[in-house]
Amino acid sequence: MILITRREHFSAAHRLFRDNWDDQKNLDTFGNCSNPNWHGHNYNLFVTVKGEINPETGFVVNIKLLSKIIKENIISKIDHRNINIDVDFMKGKLASTENLAIGIWDQLEPLIKVLDIELHCIKLMETENNYIEYYGNK
Amino acid sequence: MILITRREHFSAAHRLFRDNWDDQKNLDTFGNCSNPNWHGHNYNLFVTVKGEINPETGFVVNIKLLSKIIKENIISKIDHRNINIDVDFMKGKLASTENLAIGIWDQLEPLIKVLDIELHCIKLMETENNYIEYYGNK
Amino acid sequence: MILITRREHFSAAHRLFRDNWDDQKNLDTFGNCSNPNWHGHNYNLFVTVKGEINPETGFVVNIKLLSKIIKENIISKIDHRNINIDVDFMKGKLASTENLAIGIWDQLEPLIKVLDIELHCIKLMETENNYIEYYGNK
Amino acid sequence: MILITRREHFSAAHRLFRDNWDDQKNLDTFGNCSNPNWHGHNYNLFVTVKGEINPETGFVVNIKLLSKIIKENIISKIDHRNINIDVDFMKGKLASTENLAIGIWDQLEPLIKVLDIELHCIKLMETENNYIEYYGNK
Amino acid sequence: MILITRREHFSAAHRLFRDNWDDQKNLDTFGNCSNPNWHGHNYNLFVTVKGEINPETGFVVNIKLLSKIIKENIISKIDHRNINIDVDFMKGKLASTENLAIGIWDQLEPLIKVLDIELHCIKLMETENNYIEYYGNK
Amino acid sequence: MILITRREHFSAAHRLFRDNWDDQKNLDTFGNCSNPNWHGHNYNLFVTVKGEINPETGFVVNIKLLSKIIKENIISKIDHRNINIDVDFMKGKLASTENLAIGIWDQLEPLIKVLDIELHCIKLMETENNYIEYYGNK
Repeated sequence: MILITRREHFSAAHRLFRDNWDDQKNLDTFGNCSNPNWHGHNYNLFVTVKGEINPETGFVVNIKLLSKIIKENIISKIDHRNINIDVDFMKGKLASTENLAIGIWDQLEPLIKVLDIELHCIKLMETENNYIEYYGNK
Repeated sequence: MILITRREHFSAAHRLFRDNWDDQKNLDTFGNCSNPNWHGHNYNLFVTVKGEINPETGFVVNIKLLSKIIKENIISKIDHRNINIDVDFMKGKLASTENLAIGIWDQLEPLIKVLDIELHCIKLMETENNYIEYYGNK
Repeated sequence: MILITRREHFSAAHRLFRDNWDDQKNLDTFGNCSNPNWHGHNYNLFVTVKGEINPETGFVVNIKLLSKIIKENIISKIDHRNINIDVDFMKGKLASTENLAIGIWDQLEPLIKVLDIELHCIKLMETENNYIEYYGNK
Repeated sequence: MILITRREHFSAAHRLFRDNWDDQKNLDTFGNCSNPNWHGHNYNLFVTVKGEINPETGFVVNIKLLSKIIKENIISKIDHRNINIDVDFMKGKLASTENLAIGIWDQLEPLIKVLDIELHCIKLMETENNYIEYYGNK
Repeated sequence: MILITRREHFSAAHRLFRDNWDDQKNLDTFGNCSNPNWHGHNYNLFVTVKGEINPETGFVVNIKLLSKIIKENIISKIDHRNINIDVDFMKGKLASTENLAIGIWDQLEPLIKVLDIELHCIKLMETENNYIEYYGNK
Repeated sequence: MILITRREHFSAAHRLFRDNWDDQKNLDTFGNCSNPNWHGHNYNLFVTVKGEINPETGFVVNIKLLSKIIKENIISKIDHRNINIDVDFMKGKLASTENLAIGIWDQLEPLIKVLDIELHCIKLMETENNYIEYYGNK
């Protein structure tokens, strides 16, 4: 098995809350992540794909193509935006790192399959101390 | 000369804009940093002080005390908050990294002077690619 | 599969040696890690858990709770301590990074199981060049 | 399962091209990586092995021995060299990160097997944004 | 004094040698950096400028403009190139990190002066262990 | 002005305490850093020198020579040792990061002066959050 990973990054605002809960319950559950005026992070996104090596190029995938797909479909929609309000694929979802990793997977997975390679993992670092790894709904 | 530096970090939302400018002028000047729904960052804050070494302790300053002062006076006010709305010492100021570094200096400088040491530099990293260093109004 | 990881860190002293071996055999086997007067490291500890996402919170686990469990049960016992002498769960064991990772697993595994999630991996970095990953006794 | 990883690094020049293609086709396929006068990178190499813990030493493997094997068989051949020209185990192969990771695996795998442990993964970072993980031909 | 720094990076090949010296003298002086078939690095370039804060924007300089100047005048000429052969502003110079930092300063200094700010420092990291800081010919 | 910096690292044990104070006063002053059974760190040491560029080599100093001087005179004495007990140049001194940085300066300064360059700064990082910079007794 051979895996290739591309890192991209984005900066975004978000807030953890449920609008069917009052402020106190949101605060009890989500702590300062529920601050009504938002907060934000520099996210590091690692997209890992697997496949066979093309003997002509020595590549599993051209990493510039992989980077372009991530930038056009994820970064351009989320960088310098508000995850709760501005990002189409997060509409109606709680903006947790878990849900965001799954949302990014669902955007990228069909676009990567077309290249005859397979999306293997979305790793999403919210801070240097916290990260999520999602391997798909298997 | 001997300097001691403490790193702390915080995650916050902000937006670059002037309310006496229309949306187009804000966009032309500040680019995607003016997104009306905010964005955010993980900020790394480096506070550097200088002074004499206390011969009894071998310390310029007890770094736990320095950390406590930064946490109580800066981090507790800005972490998981909105810089434009929630932070008293940034009220009425453009939330640029430059102005934020100066705002942090102005909060910490009198508190550090009391310890018979001197605030030397506020270094504020907005991303791994961008940072400000402020050495005071000298 | 979805995984969430929390990083914590601690600074500790240790020594690699067997008291049923003489100094020369300890030195031959463990090199400068057997220095009789100890040495030490800044350890980075990555605790990875897996589970289902709670649809109400969007969380596999509240990362602040995970951090609290690690701090109360590991960091408070080992940070700024001597691994060979001061740490109850390492008593009588060789203080290798391998054994320390397993010791941390054995402390955390029952506490994490109670939360209806599963401990997946203990990754323990002794230096930027050396690390252990332990996935349990499976 | 317990894994131990050693990081080593090397700096090398390379070029991506096929000599049975003309310059334009090389440029179309490999972009600026096909620059005829070479370019180069600081590579980070992570060698992960798995095995049983030796109860006498608390080690899966003595990490200094692992480091020595990597340095003598890989780093000494590739550091401050040209991957396409100077490295015996890359002769006749496209100098992609994928092929280099496999080449390193093929060098190290028999040397590590002799120690009664198993090579688990070669992770090769070409830049902070791009890396390959190879788990062998299984 | 307030300073703002932008990091950019590039990957390039180079070789340290004097063509008026024979191979042995080059090897004696420059060690494996004189390898005739080149080697290379991922360079991190930190460009620091100083100036007054524009009260309308809160900026010393728009960091996107600073990034654009660095990319157009330095990165586009040196990234994925050979420093000795391909880079106009390094022609005829020994490709040491010292000379490269000065070469970058000489390219950027007049372009930055035009913006009514001042180039303060070029910091050039060749590896995570080696770097140069150049403050101009003062 | 042109500066060149070499990073080296070492892992060591230490303890902050005064033997003319009782345990309680040591604990009150130094907190958990006074743990009687020691603790330890991975230290990062950055040695910065300044000088003229040698026109024959393009170097302020051959960085391999600088590294050799640091390794032979500092790292070999302190790596995998106890700073309080094992290090000749720290005998009788409180093992604070401040005093250690000055101790390293005093060891290196005469050795670097001989090379017709000048020691500019010793930067010593005890953790990723705490560091000292010493510029000499000027």
